[in-house]
Amino acid sequence: MTAPSPLSPYDNMSPVAQAAYRSRAAAATLAPLPRAEKDDALLAVADALEVRTAEIVAANAKDVARAREAGTSEAVVDRLTLTPERVRAIASDVRDVVTLPDPVGEVVRGGTLPNGIDLRQVRVPLGVVGIIYEARPNVTVDAAALCLKSGNAVLLRGSSSAYESNTALVRVLRDAVHGAGLPADAIQLVPGESRDSVRELMRARGLVDVLIPRGGASLIRTVVEESTVPVIETGTGNCHVYVDAHADLDTAVEILVNSKAQRVSVCNAAETLLVHQDIADAFLPRALDALAEAGVTVHADERVQTYADASKATVVPATAEDWETEYLSYDIAAAVVDSLEQAVEHIRLWTSGHTEAIVTTSQQAARRFTQLVDSTTVAVNASTRFTDGGQFGFGAEIGISTQKLHARGPMGLPELTSTKYIVTGDGHVR
Amino acid sequence: MTAPSPLSPYDNMSPVAQAAYRSRAAAATLAPLPRAEKDDALLAVADALEVRTAEIVAANAKDVARAREAGTSEAVVDRLTLTPERVRAIASDVRDVVTLPDPVGEVVRGGTLPNGIDLRQVRVPLGVVGIIYEARPNVTVDAAALCLKSGNAVLLRGSSSAYESNTALVRVLRDAVHGAGLPADAIQLVPGESRDSVRELMRARGLVDVLIPRGGASLIRTVVEESTVPVIETGTGNCHVYVDAHADLDTAVEILVNSKAQRVSVCNAAETLLVHQDIADAFLPRALDALAEAGVTVHADERVQTYADASKATVVPATAEDWETEYLSYDIAAAVVDSLEQAVEHIRLWTSGHTEAIVTTSQQAARRFTQLVDSTTVAVNASTRFTDGGQFGFGAEIGISTQKLHARGPMGLPELTSTKYIVTGDGHVR
Repeated sequence: MTAPSPLSPYDNMSPVAQAAYRSRAAAATLAPLPRAEKDDALLAVADALEVRTAEIVAANAKDVARAREAGTSEAVVDRLTLTPERVRAIASDVRDVVTLPDPVGEVVRGGTLPNGIDLRQVRVPLGVVGIIYEARPNVTVDAAALCLKSGNAVLLRGSSSAYESNTALVRVLRDAVHGAGLPADAIQLVPGESRDSVRELMRARGLVDVLIPRGGASLIRTVVEESTVPVIETGTGNCHVYVDAHADLDTAVEILVNSKAQRVSVCNAAETLLVHQDIADAFLPRALDALAEAGVTVHADERVQTYADASKATVVPATAEDWETEYLSYDIAAAVVDSLEQAVEHIRLWTSGHTEAIVTTSQQAARRFTQLVDSTTVAVNASTRFTDGGQFGFGAEIGISTQKLHARGPMGLPELTSTKYIVTGDGHVR
Repeated sequence: MTAPSPLSPYDNMSPVAQAAYRSRAAAATLAPLPRAEKDDALLAVADALEVRTAEIVAANAKDVARAREAGTSEAVVDRLTLTPERVRAIASDVRDVVTLPDPVGEVVRGGTLPNGIDLRQVRVPLGVVGIIYEARPNVTVDAAALCLKSGNAVLLRGSSSAYESNTALVRVLRDAVHGAGLPADAIQLVPGESRDSVRELMRARGLVDVLIPRGGASLIRTVVEESTVPVIETGTGNCHVYVDAHADLDTAVEILVNSKAQRVSVCNAAETLLVHQDIADAFLPRALDALAEAGVTVHADERVQTYADASKATVVPATAEDWETEYLSYDIAAAVVDSLEQAVEHIRLWTSGHTEAIVTTSQQAARRFTQLVDSTTVAVNASTRFTDGGQFGFGAEIGISTQKLHARGPMGLPELTSTKYIVTGDGHVR
């Protein structure tokens, strides 16, 4: 047999395709590795991040300077900035990944068929995972560590505003992985800073097994619409808190304020409050005052507006647009509903499908709400802010899927795997 | 609160989008239904198929007549044809689906978090499932029954050559479902016979949750490339049989012939034979004769060709194209490899990732092959023909996924579900 050179079909390929092809080769090496070898490489990565902190911080300083020159907001500059402390924290996160169980090889189901064949479905890596993300350079390391632990090669496409930082980080990661005896190409930056390189990555079906966009709504929409590589949609969160007719008022106020204001910039923060009409008189005056104290502006429907004058709250009239807005700020939309069913209907119509909470003392209402609401997470008497890989005990999170295929909700290491069936017989034929 | 009419955002929508929107409404009704109600509807469907067989067969006769006029091959006409016996068999398949467990509501994982929150991940329907398929009208009923059982609404887009048959079948199914008190729109044909309606279905992201194309390679490629709705790729099978240096010769011949010739038109039939050089002298003469007896033409590399003259086999030289061809006919490509590793390399380069078998008496070789080969199914001393939902004991199959995301290998009812998390607290906040 004269096997064609494995490279031959790709002789004329673009730099992005070449990188993806090298990722595939690395993925083939990673797939059968035992946990210990992957963990050793991760420990080497953590050590290298600490030893080479100065190099990383110096590269980051160039990105930061460029961002300041371009008049970038301080909030964004802060997210971009790496300090020695932050690099240490990133290294510590890598060590946390070492402690997580390896999902690869787990037998998901298995048994013996009536004909005596042994059938096992076992977890295997996805292969090559592409991550397209925005400014935060810590994502570079987090994503690489989770992919390596789950036996996947990763192709990283960060923001061009973090180019120097990401280049330095990936250099450190690759050196460490190579030093530990694993292929450096397990971790690669997508070559090129242009939009074209993103487009090529999105069309690299057959070379890249999945793309995970992490960032704002427009980034995610672009990837979803243009990619031929399968995509896991993440992150958009227009989350609702519904206060039922039967609800403990203290609990309702606490969950509302926590869901909205404990941290406003995150996808699991609440963006809309729905209140059953039977409890509106008792609840809304307290809720509006509590929201005012937390600094939250209320975008209110007509019925909520009737409580505005008697409260300290800043209340503005809601338009239809408010029902679908993910504010990510100290704002909340609010409406009174006639029934649980109307709350469910409102949610179905406007939600991004991330997290919806009900506050109720009624077992019947809780059961009905959890049955009828179809979002990644339905919370009963708990804050929307719990939808999080860390909170769920997954140890780490590559993102929160808001789609239904493959993974839904917070994605940990098992969500970075596929499965294969192993059929074992004694010469069985049909 | 003045809730907008749920229909308002869709006032100007196309017929396909309107149908998809009705599917969504039906899906919302189906999702919380207990198993008994879905099973009753399925039994009503089975009964209706039997009671209204004449109507179905009459409609089918129009399609068959049209196909004959158009000079369609008898094999295709046969696949298109419905007889009273075949309708009875289809009804019987529906009754089999009734006996399968309902995946919806299954707790996939669950427990209590350190803070006392109860966390459960439960199976829920995907929502709206689109099926794009070719001539066989039995797929109409199979797909509808599996989707209904798993609480999904289905949007069916069959071949225009089966239009009359599918229209009659869907009319019968909808009447039965409606008669059982469930929404008729749980089962819909995509309106319109034109290519445009397929294109609209593929772009109905947000309305349709997943598209499953079932048919030839070009149909599947089109859907994969043009759809913004998530797709589950199915079916292409360039399956390999590798005969290791240490293999029982009788077993190897039997598995080879069964994998290739037990039924040649199916995706889990073998298309390439790889033989370790150390066993070639002993195995290939017997293998070639056995393939000749089964009527199989061998597309051979140079080393296999050297055994041709001494055998009864029809042997033609293989070109590179043969390594990637899914013949679906009495043809097989064949090559001698230097090692297990070279066999794996060949498979990685050319496989469609469906099923690969190793025949070996060596535990070490079996273990290495199953670790290194990354296809939906790896068979050890068993025919490739076992990769099948029925054979795997799933009771039914909506297709065989050859992609890594969401589902891989034969897809049964659980693969037609997603999950959601239910978080239950006592007023828990962060």
